[in-house]
Amino acid sequence: MNWLDEVTWDANGLVPVIAQEHDTGRVLMFAWMNREALQLSSETNQAVYWSRSRNKLWRKGEESGHVQKIHEIRLDCDEDVILLKVEQVGGIACHTGRHNCFFKTLKDGNWLIDQPVIKNPDEIYKHE
Amino acid sequence: MNWLDEVTWDANGLVPVIAQEHDTGRVLMFAWMNREALQLSSETNQAVYWSRSRNKLWRKGEESGHVQKIHEIRLDCDEDVILLKVEQVGGIACHTGRHNCFFKTLKDGNWLIDQPVIKNPDEIYKHE
Repeated sequence: MNWLDEVTWDANGLVPVIAQEHDTGRVLMFAWMNREALQLSSETNQAVYWSRSRNKLWRKGEESGHVQKIHEIRLDCDEDVILLKVEQVGGIACHTGRHNCFFKTLKDGNWLIDQPVIKNPDEIYKHE
Repeated sequence: MNWLDEVTWDANGLVPVIAQEHDTGRVLMFAWMNREALQLSSETNQAVYWSRSRNKLWRKGEESGHVQKIHEIRLDCDEDVILLKVEQVGGIACHTGRHNCFFKTLKDGNWLIDQPVIKNPDEIYKHE
């Protein structure tokens, strides 16, 4: 049986993916993959997602250079969630220029930003 | 503005949630919350999810005792994914009796289990 067939794809043919920095354990981002994205990720050892907003393959880092080199691909008990352990090139996973996307923390009933912008997004996405 | 209103709920009124062990950084599981679940989680400091299969609130650990004590609730850049930092009581998050749900790793085109069962599920769920 092909390993891709063992993944339980949702009604849209997608699977949720958690990207985690392999050495620090920090959770970088959350995204989705379709079958082709997962196959390409595995073949190239770089994270390729499915962009639900743009409705196309999203080669993470294709504009920013902030690619994610895959160290490990893991699957959960229900076979419907992927955990990617990656090296985040450039140390920036978030489109806001921060290390990761989870930069807001709940404090006394408010979402507070507690992570700095490492690089101005205008400098990251020069070609847009 | 209420902090719950700042979360972007999907078409089903849900938000994906990543549960991470606060001290080790290990990703424990992935689940969903509706607004009530997130509010209850915040109020009780214990993870309450929305079970999509049972279509009801799921107070994590209500049968097993393996509750998740919340240390931090984080939100991502798009405000549509939650990251919970928790203490996993009992050291078992997965219904299979393992530490976490991501116990399969892709190796040479096969999903290999590389994490042990800590406790037999029959012993965990005695009341079912």
